[in-house]
Amino acid sequence: MPKQPSRSLETFPNPEPDRDYVIRHVCPEYTAVCPVTGQPDFGTIVVIYTPDRLCVELKSLKLYLWSFRDEGHFFEQATNQILSDLVRAVEPRRMTVIGRFNVRGGITTTVVARHAAKPRGASPKPRGASPRRRRR
Amino acid sequence: MPKQPSRSLETFPNPEPDRDYVIRHVCPEYTAVCPVTGQPDFGTIVVIYTPDRLCVELKSLKLYLWSFRDEGHFFEQATNQILSDLVRAVEPRRMTVIGRFNVRGGITTTVVARHAAKPRGASPKPRGASPRRRRR
Amino acid sequence: MPKQPSRSLETFPNPEPDRDYVIRHVCPEYTAVCPVTGQPDFGTIVVIYTPDRLCVELKSLKLYLWSFRDEGHFFEQATNQILSDLVRAVEPRRMTVIGRFNVRGGITTTVVARHAAKPRGASPKPRGASPRRRRR
Amino acid sequence: MPKQPSRSLETFPNPEPDRDYVIRHVCPEYTAVCPVTGQPDFGTIVVIYTPDRLCVELKSLKLYLWSFRDEGHFFEQATNQILSDLVRAVEPRRMTVIGRFNVRGGITTTVVARHAAKPRGASPKPRGASPRRRRR
Amino acid sequence: MPKQPSRSLETFPNPEPDRDYVIRHVCPEYTAVCPVTGQPDFGTIVVIYTPDRLCVELKSLKLYLWSFRDEGHFFEQATNQILSDLVRAVEPRRMTVIGRFNVRGGITTTVVARHAAKPRGASPKPRGASPRRRRR
Amino acid sequence: MPKQPSRSLETFPNPEPDRDYVIRHVCPEYTAVCPVTGQPDFGTIVVIYTPDRLCVELKSLKLYLWSFRDEGHFFEQATNQILSDLVRAVEPRRMTVIGRFNVRGGITTTVVARHAAKPRGASPKPRGASPRRRRR
Amino acid sequence: MPKQPSRSLETFPNPEPDRDYVIRHVCPEYTAVCPVTGQPDFGTIVVIYTPDRLCVELKSLKLYLWSFRDEGHFFEQATNQILSDLVRAVEPRRMTVIGRFNVRGGITTTVVARHAAKPRGASPKPRGASPRRRRR
Amino acid sequence: MPKQPSRSLETFPNPEPDRDYVIRHVCPEYTAVCPVTGQPDFGTIVVIYTPDRLCVELKSLKLYLWSFRDEGHFFEQATNQILSDLVRAVEPRRMTVIGRFNVRGGITTTVVARHAAKPRGASPKPRGASPRRRRR
Amino acid sequence: MPKQPSRSLETFPNPEPDRDYVIRHVCPEYTAVCPVTGQPDFGTIVVIYTPDRLCVELKSLKLYLWSFRDEGHFFEQATNQILSDLVRAVEPRRMTVIGRFNVRGGITTTVVARHAAKPRGASPKPRGASPRRRRR
Amino acid sequence: MPKQPSRSLETFPNPEPDRDYVIRHVCPEYTAVCPVTGQPDFGTIVVIYTPDRLCVELKSLKLYLWSFRDEGHFFEQATNQILSDLVRAVEPRRMTVIGRFNVRGGITTTVVARHAAKPRGASPKPRGASPRRRRR
Repeated sequence: MPKQPSRSLETFPNPEPDRDYVIRHVCPEYTAVCPVTGQPDFGTIVVIYTPDRLCVELKSLKLYLWSFRDEGHFFEQATNQILSDLVRAVEPRRMTVIGRFNVRGGITTTVVARHAAKPRGASPKPRGASPRRRRR
Repeated sequence: MPKQPSRSLETFPNPEPDRDYVIRHVCPEYTAVCPVTGQPDFGTIVVIYTPDRLCVELKSLKLYLWSFRDEGHFFEQATNQILSDLVRAVEPRRMTVIGRFNVRGGITTTVVARHAAKPRGASPKPRGASPRRRRR
Repeated sequence: MPKQPSRSLETFPNPEPDRDYVIRHVCPEYTAVCPVTGQPDFGTIVVIYTPDRLCVELKSLKLYLWSFRDEGHFFEQATNQILSDLVRAVEPRRMTVIGRFNVRGGITTTVVARHAAKPRGASPKPRGASPRRRRR
Repeated sequence: MPKQPSRSLETFPNPEPDRDYVIRHVCPEYTAVCPVTGQPDFGTIVVIYTPDRLCVELKSLKLYLWSFRDEGHFFEQATNQILSDLVRAVEPRRMTVIGRFNVRGGITTTVVARHAAKPRGASPKPRGASPRRRRR
Repeated sequence: MPKQPSRSLETFPNPEPDRDYVIRHVCPEYTAVCPVTGQPDFGTIVVIYTPDRLCVELKSLKLYLWSFRDEGHFFEQATNQILSDLVRAVEPRRMTVIGRFNVRGGITTTVVARHAAKPRGASPKPRGASPRRRRR
Repeated sequence: MPKQPSRSLETFPNPEPDRDYVIRHVCPEYTAVCPVTGQPDFGTIVVIYTPDRLCVELKSLKLYLWSFRDEGHFFEQATNQILSDLVRAVEPRRMTVIGRFNVRGGITTTVVARHAAKPRGASPKPRGASPRRRRR
Repeated sequence: MPKQPSRSLETFPNPEPDRDYVIRHVCPEYTAVCPVTGQPDFGTIVVIYTPDRLCVELKSLKLYLWSFRDEGHFFEQATNQILSDLVRAVEPRRMTVIGRFNVRGGITTTVVARHAAKPRGASPKPRGASPRRRRR
Repeated sequence: MPKQPSRSLETFPNPEPDRDYVIRHVCPEYTAVCPVTGQPDFGTIVVIYTPDRLCVELKSLKLYLWSFRDEGHFFEQATNQILSDLVRAVEPRRMTVIGRFNVRGGITTTVVARHAAKPRGASPKPRGASPRRRRR
Repeated sequence: MPKQPSRSLETFPNPEPDRDYVIRHVCPEYTAVCPVTGQPDFGTIVVIYTPDRLCVELKSLKLYLWSFRDEGHFFEQATNQILSDLVRAVEPRRMTVIGRFNVRGGITTTVVARHAAKPRGASPKPRGASPRRRRR
Repeated sequence: MPKQPSRSLETFPNPEPDRDYVIRHVCPEYTAVCPVTGQPDFGTIVVIYTPDRLCVELKSLKLYLWSFRDEGHFFEQATNQILSDLVRAVEPRRMTVIGRFNVRGGITTTVVARHAAKPRGASPKPRGASPRRRRR
């Protein structure tokens, strides 16, 4: 087993692809570096998803989160990146990533990002391209 | 009363089949063996269901969960198997099985699988056969 | 005031029949006898209801639950019987009875049964008579 | 400031009438007298509402609840009266009053009553006058 | 970095504008002065929002809340003002501000105010101008 | 049974006078009137004692605490008076009375007073008469 | 195994008599009848002891507590009797019995009774016979 | 009643000077300014004391703590000053002041300072003058 | 690393033998078989000790506890055996082992066993050989 | 202010050296690398001390703990080193360091190390040199 941080996420076949079910991983050992101050940040990453054909391998998830340890990441960016990386790796039916970060400046921050598989034939990224959101 | 682990699940007639109601069993004494490392895993199995004609007998449920003790099971597979075995045994109107497993590699995993009785005349396993899920 | 267990449930007129509101009674002192082993069981009975014309009198509810003390009752049957007895006595608009029973064989059991008043003109027990549920 | 119990509820203009928002007051110091036994009862009153033009003044709410101290009130009646008195005083868009009362006879009681402003032109008290509820 | 209270709220570009996601800041160090008694009030401000193009900068949020320290504010007004100021600064898709204030006169008060971006072409403040709410 | 507040404390013979043991009563329904503001105060009275020949009767203790309801009492004075009254009534080997009072002015107050039976032959109130305490 | 309440307490040899160690049993299913009102009382019995030559058998302890179910017992008397019965049965080096009883009349009662083996040669019940305690 | 912060601590005569008893005030609304950064700090001050001839008046204690609001204070210094000021004002037999301060830099700080009245005839501040502590 | 249960306990040199300090390991994954019923038991083992020259290696402690999985053990015996085995392996200055076992027959059991290194020159097992304990 | 990890611990003069008082810092953001597996470990470091002439500066303590981030440390060694480093820096009258480390292999570990200033004239490290501890 590799003993180093790794951005590559290992998967294994979903043992029950015919059933819509939910897997939740709570990972309280996330740490990265604040890009502004250079000081370490800490938090808990929660991954909740309905697998389609693939599940994320637990030890691989640990090594993946370890890979943030020496990098600079903002709270909002890190949570969204973890979601995007996991979606790319396991192509889930639905996935939510929650980042609960430790108090900074007397304020505690939580970020919740969700992904849902698009219906077939839908154009890529339709939501972000909607006029309402982009008009500003 | 048998004093050995047993995969057969005993049932008794639902005392109130005319009413949709919910039974929840919380079983904090699940243990199995990790198929990869061979080391024991531990967890809590929660069974929530609306009985139709049959209820699962409590002691039988205990002996059933005991039968996992010396077997190799992954978290996702075990939770789904327990749901499938219970659905086969008591044919409930609805059933949810939750597996809350102890921390491994600093990560705590929970698996939630649901079953709902299909309307009469529906073809078997319609969900798994849906094009969207299978196309990949 | 009677100082004996009693199956008869006293009621008083709903002081606000024109308003849909909810009353909840939490009764942590339920005990009965297990019909199989003859040993005492313990639990908490929660009654939640929207009264129509009548409310259940608190002391009467206590004496009613006391009446189970020396009787044999399974968890599922007792919860449903308490719901049926209370529905008969106060004819509520809606009622839920929750039975939370102490651990037996390492497993904790909760039973949740609901009743809703039927629309006028509906035939009695329509749900139980539905073909889907009875076909098996 | 008056230092006596008072049934009159003071109000002040809603500082943000154009926005639907929610105010919650938790008042753990309710006490009244049981009309049957003459003994004191205790409880917590929770008031949750969306103001329209008026908000209830906090100190006035305290003096109002104080006014129950020497009066006889049943749990169900008191909760509904507090809701009715507050609705009359502040004419909210929506209001919920929750009465959580201390254990009596081993049983803990909670009462939850809701009010929603009727659409314009609706006849008064339409719900209570519905045939289904009154027919009994 | 400025070390003084400041009403101006700094922002930074939303790192993931194509995704609807949620950011929550819990700020337990709010204090202001009661306009009636002149005495300090204390509370926790919770900000929950879905960013559109902008996110609020964490340190700026701290300095903003600090700016209430020597000002007179009622609970309901302060919560609504914080929501309005933040909506103006970051133009979120949705935002909720919760003010949980310390007990006063034995009563604990919470205020919850929500904002949702209006669909394109809608006239400003349509809700407050609705006949039902304004007729009184 | 009397249904009125009463300052007289009923007792019953200690069923095990040969053994030093401890009885604790937690009474969360204390209320009195603040002598300064005239407003009601609330609190929990905890009585912990080692009985000698007598125990305090539970219902009598309830009626005794009820007798404070319409009287003016400061926190410190009430706690000490309850201890003195109980010591006089049951002459315990040791007794502690704890008064936990609700928040007033943002401050929560607890008072803890203890009594220990004096060795035979000791002069009354020796502690209060000690030079150190009285010299000031 | 007997399936009836039984006052006789079964024991087994202490597996480690050369070591002073502590065993604690928490039994939340105690119930008896109030000798005054005839109504059921409920509580939790905690037994903490240092065994000498004997330990109390767990199932026997359950049957023993079951034997109180239909008898009249005051809180103080029951706790002391359980201690005395257990001391007689297992002759422990030290034993504490705690009775935590459910709220009655708004008051929650706990009783704590202790026993310590007397040094060899001491006369029986020396403490109860002490002049100070008996003189009254 | 004064409505301004005030360093003067009002007292009232101890209603039970002959008894050694304990008063505890928990004050969760302490705030001051960090002397280094100029930013506000927050905390909870707990005062625990055995009164001699005087008790501290509750409202006065509130106004006293209010007086720190615009001043610069370090955690260690503030806790010790509050103890010294209170000791001077009420001359207690014993007093403990606990300052629990909010997280700063990811670290939560608590300071606990105690005072005990010196035996008669002792020289002032004997402890600080001890050779062991001062030799360094 | 061995991946099998093992009764041998690995140690490593105490990194700070000159200082008396405490190490606590909480192991919630203990399971064994009840010697009477043959059914699995579950519990948490807590090990607290002051090392002398040796510390117990964490992974070895895990494999050691794993070795109980298929063996028959009573609660009291298992806790004492774990203490004895650990004392033999690491020869600590002081050690406490706590076994907290899951509810059986409605009763929860905890066993606490302590060991202290004997002063030099003391004869082995002096405590167990004391006349008082052995005379019975 | 330095923004890098630093082993040097800054101090400031104890503002109240004449009083024995206690300062506690809870630091939940400790992380280091396991010397065996190379994987990151996480934990909370609690520092409790009675200052003599010096106090540890809060930000400096943060930077000091940060300096462990990329180093290999066992739980027992790290806790003792932190104690030794802090004792050298602030020469406290008494100090305790507690390391609470995250679960590894299903086992949670806590280490508690204490230091007390030696009486004048005592030889250095007398305890470690004691014959009993070293004889093995």
